[in-house]
Amino acid sequence: MTAQHEPNCAARATRNYPEEAWWVAGFSEEISGTPIRRMLLDHAVVLYRGASGRVVALEDRCVHRWAPLSMGRPAGDDIVCPYHGFRFGPDGQCVHVPTQRDIPGKAKVRAFEVRESAPFVWIWMGRGEPAEALPATIDWAEDPRWLTMGAALPVDCNYMLIQENVLDLTHFGYLHATTFQQPGWTAPPSEVRTDAGRVGYRQHFTGIRLAPFQAGPTGIGPDKDVERTDWGWFMSPAIHVAGIDIVDPSPGAGRRAAFSSRIVHATTPISPTRSHYWWFFAQDYALDDAQVARDVRAIVDATFEEDKRLLEVIQETISTDVRRDQAVEVSVKADQPGLKARLMLHKMLRPAAQALSSPDMQQPAAARSPRE
Amino acid sequence: MTAQHEPNCAARATRNYPEEAWWVAGFSEEISGTPIRRMLLDHAVVLYRGASGRVVALEDRCVHRWAPLSMGRPAGDDIVCPYHGFRFGPDGQCVHVPTQRDIPGKAKVRAFEVRESAPFVWIWMGRGEPAEALPATIDWAEDPRWLTMGAALPVDCNYMLIQENVLDLTHFGYLHATTFQQPGWTAPPSEVRTDAGRVGYRQHFTGIRLAPFQAGPTGIGPDKDVERTDWGWFMSPAIHVAGIDIVDPSPGAGRRAAFSSRIVHATTPISPTRSHYWWFFAQDYALDDAQVARDVRAIVDATFEEDKRLLEVIQETISTDVRRDQAVEVSVKADQPGLKARLMLHKMLRPAAQALSSPDMQQPAAARSPRE
Amino acid sequence: MTAQHEPNCAARATRNYPEEAWWVAGFSEEISGTPIRRMLLDHAVVLYRGASGRVVALEDRCVHRWAPLSMGRPAGDDIVCPYHGFRFGPDGQCVHVPTQRDIPGKAKVRAFEVRESAPFVWIWMGRGEPAEALPATIDWAEDPRWLTMGAALPVDCNYMLIQENVLDLTHFGYLHATTFQQPGWTAPPSEVRTDAGRVGYRQHFTGIRLAPFQAGPTGIGPDKDVERTDWGWFMSPAIHVAGIDIVDPSPGAGRRAAFSSRIVHATTPISPTRSHYWWFFAQDYALDDAQVARDVRAIVDATFEEDKRLLEVIQETISTDVRRDQAVEVSVKADQPGLKARLMLHKMLRPAAQALSSPDMQQPAAARSPRE
Ligand code: FES
Ligand code: FES
Ligand code: FES
Repeated sequence: MTAQHEPNCAARATRNYPEEAWWVAGFSEEISGTPIRRMLLDHAVVLYRGASGRVVALEDRCVHRWAPLSMGRPAGDDIVCPYHGFRFGPDGQCVHVPTQRDIPGKAKVRAFEVRESAPFVWIWMGRGEPAEALPATIDWAEDPRWLTMGAALPVDCNYMLIQENVLDLTHFGYLHATTFQQPGWTAPPSEVRTDAGRVGYRQHFTGIRLAPFQAGPTGIGPDKDVERTDWGWFMSPAIHVAGIDIVDPSPGAGRRAAFSSRIVHATTPISPTRSHYWWFFAQDYALDDAQVARDVRAIVDATFEEDKRLLEVIQETISTDVRRDQAVEVSVKADQPGLKARLMLHKMLRPAAQALSSPDMQQPAAARSPRE
Repeated sequence: MTAQHEPNCAARATRNYPEEAWWVAGFSEEISGTPIRRMLLDHAVVLYRGASGRVVALEDRCVHRWAPLSMGRPAGDDIVCPYHGFRFGPDGQCVHVPTQRDIPGKAKVRAFEVRESAPFVWIWMGRGEPAEALPATIDWAEDPRWLTMGAALPVDCNYMLIQENVLDLTHFGYLHATTFQQPGWTAPPSEVRTDAGRVGYRQHFTGIRLAPFQAGPTGIGPDKDVERTDWGWFMSPAIHVAGIDIVDPSPGAGRRAAFSSRIVHATTPISPTRSHYWWFFAQDYALDDAQVARDVRAIVDATFEEDKRLLEVIQETISTDVRRDQAVEVSVKADQPGLKARLMLHKMLRPAAQALSSPDMQQPAAARSPRE
Repeated sequence: MTAQHEPNCAARATRNYPEEAWWVAGFSEEISGTPIRRMLLDHAVVLYRGASGRVVALEDRCVHRWAPLSMGRPAGDDIVCPYHGFRFGPDGQCVHVPTQRDIPGKAKVRAFEVRESAPFVWIWMGRGEPAEALPATIDWAEDPRWLTMGAALPVDCNYMLIQENVLDLTHFGYLHATTFQQPGWTAPPSEVRTDAGRVGYRQHFTGIRLAPFQAGPTGIGPDKDVERTDWGWFMSPAIHVAGIDIVDPSPGAGRRAAFSSRIVHATTPISPTRSHYWWFFAQDYALDDAQVARDVRAIVDATFEEDKRLLEVIQETISTDVRRDQAVEVSVKADQPGLKARLMLHKMLRPAAQALSSPDMQQPAAARSPRE
């Protein structure tokens, strides 16, 4: 297996991302009638919501003299270049040149296929036919039975450093020891599965206490032994969906026994060493308590800040490394999910991308625990 | 023609500037007895005015241990190195070494030929004999019949993005729609000429209203139809001279009918992706109205700021582009002046620079309208 | 000789530093129980003082997933990785993996040999056996008969620009004319010696006045002619030790005649164009006068700031130079010490580094004047 997956951290300064794939372009709510310029997989893209409500994604480079369309103004579902006023439709076709009647045949910018699926806008950056299914659909994103929150966090590191971060939760006991305070991850995950181009892990804990951000909001408190199941799925290089399921073995009479939270980690490369990181969290308890929402948010923010700070120094170490070919990386059992994800990525990056076009990669994949 | 000129925007991140040419080094008034360091065509140059009043331009790199002479002090027309005190004459020859009597034969820094021609100091960066004539002389620069103003504006883009910007004024209707508010540029220029290595355009407008920055100061007001002629000359890659000539077809009795303004755009590469941009504006009306001067200045500043912001994003797009060979650029009729300028540049950049040494390139060329 | 030493300033943007050598890692007092990350010769190194008091220097890159150990916490003389908690001993061996009992055989980070010798911590970055002797021992660093002071000054230039700076004191009359005000350096040093891989110079001045920072503190005053001897040794590319010895030829009855000061210039490359610069100054007079200490410190700080500003512009000139092979550098007699130091360096940088392993390079070398 070693020979097949990416050899080591040194690959984290390369364009190790497939173009023929769905990537998150942003939260739906970020895209409005005011165009924004966003670097996605090294390409400048303009994103805006046309008058009809549809999201349009075009190369942010006018075919005339390369002006950023994002500095122009939308007109209906079209957009007008800020420089000399060429107008482009949502399909990228130039539909108007102010200074002449005929429109040159090649006057077209690339249009990227997009798909909205709450809470995200997805984009297909490749030249091939977009895959039918998105890597993940977030069923609970707009479900009133869940309290949700999310944010965008630019991180100056290769996106796979983030994906590998969330595939090895044994880092909770160290990096997030004082913030997340989630106990139990002192052993590799007991279950690791690969399925239809995805990698999942699952770990069950019994007789365990809850972290502060769960103890209060669930009403279970910090001193009671409960059951907890942590699970996560690397759905594609673009997105990881994870969950925590808590069961109180002896709830008081008439009291609730099961509680769940979910988190989505969406990563989109800006360049080999910079990434968009969009996270989206949900819990099915304490839905109406604004103070709980603020407390949870504060803890999640602090935790991600710890990840960001660490990963950016790792990237600096990788980027300034002068001994690429001597670079050693040693793995342990807890790295199984991460190593399997590297293998998936390696297959996707192969010429002809045969892995990508294999049917099982394309099946709809709602996030669920490996056991479900 | 396509094969001959620079293929597309991708060339805007290369050293696309001839050394065997006159370039603007700055405004005369910038050069004083206090030496300044200025990057010109990738070379550090020290500029100062010697005691005799002459402008001296030397390589800003002492031949001894490469200290910047610009941190030293002038002595007469010489300059003394700030590090170990070697003294250099205006011809670059070392004339004194503090610690020994004999001066090593090779102790010489490059001296660049300069020429003052209001409002600029010009510099010849090449190794060959400087051309006799400057690309342009600005007759009206010190003429009291003109109200003048100018400024230096560093722009983080290739200098040709600026030159092409001013060769296609159809951008007025879009980029400067709310600032300059100059109407009429809704068609390509009716006249495009090449002449002695220069490219000129000319456009005549009849029955047109004046922009606010002209309506008030000319006294014509915003509601009267006038005649307007816009013209411009790409005199060399270093400088563009343009003008606007207004004629009021029915001035009141004893009132003036003709009004003119001029603008010079001087561009000097700092590096492939950074440029000095010196503009110099003049009008032959409202000469003594300080408020008019302030108002015009504010509008011109705002307009250039719009250019700068846009061009810097275009340069970012060019510089980060990962598809150099697939980079498409589509031209229209309004691009004729710009395309012809590219062709001129292409000839100048050819090995042996035969275009440069051709006699007609060297003829004095005061700025005038193509029709004059 | 010319052909053998580094050709010119252009080498000052390359990795012109031997790894098989002792370099200063910092002042002893900088290294505490709180780990620090420091870039040394392009390598990220974590430095900390273990519970036993010993200084530990490890590659600042966990062998697992490259996290910076400097963000972790020391435990005894060991350090625990901030990411997943691997624990490493001072020899770099992984001694604990939290999630499994067995430790992979290759789980080891590089440990660098260090040696404390006041006021510095030295580090050996090479793969070979460390040389027995340090390039210099500073006998007087903790001697109560000397008033000492020192500081770290990061300079954005190649370290050899600093070393050459202090090998040619004729720059005092120009760069530090208004700060250090040390007169006399108007000729090349009369004595230049190479000895056991080191380069020394010595210059004697008679009938000379003292600089302000000496005149007051010695009690001699600014108006008396004294004897002064300046000397310096390039002990290795890492360190230069210099001194000034003053003799009052006619001290008053019962008054002291001899006064000395010393300065150490330690340079350690961060990268080809950035350096750590640690200076350490001492004088054997005015030991108990706090105001003198402050005044001398202010003058030394101002002087180094002048060096830093100048050297950083020189580096910019080198780094942006587009004519590498045409780069001229002219030397004079005052450059003999610097040129000999280049020759030493050139020998050290040769493959097999035979110069380095020659016995005379390895002899203990306390700093002393060439004549002692
Ligand atoms: S650059 Fe877009 S219309 Fe000219
Ligand atoms: S660098 Fe100019 S005199 Fe030494
Ligand atoms: S990176 Fe150090 S323990 Fe994982």
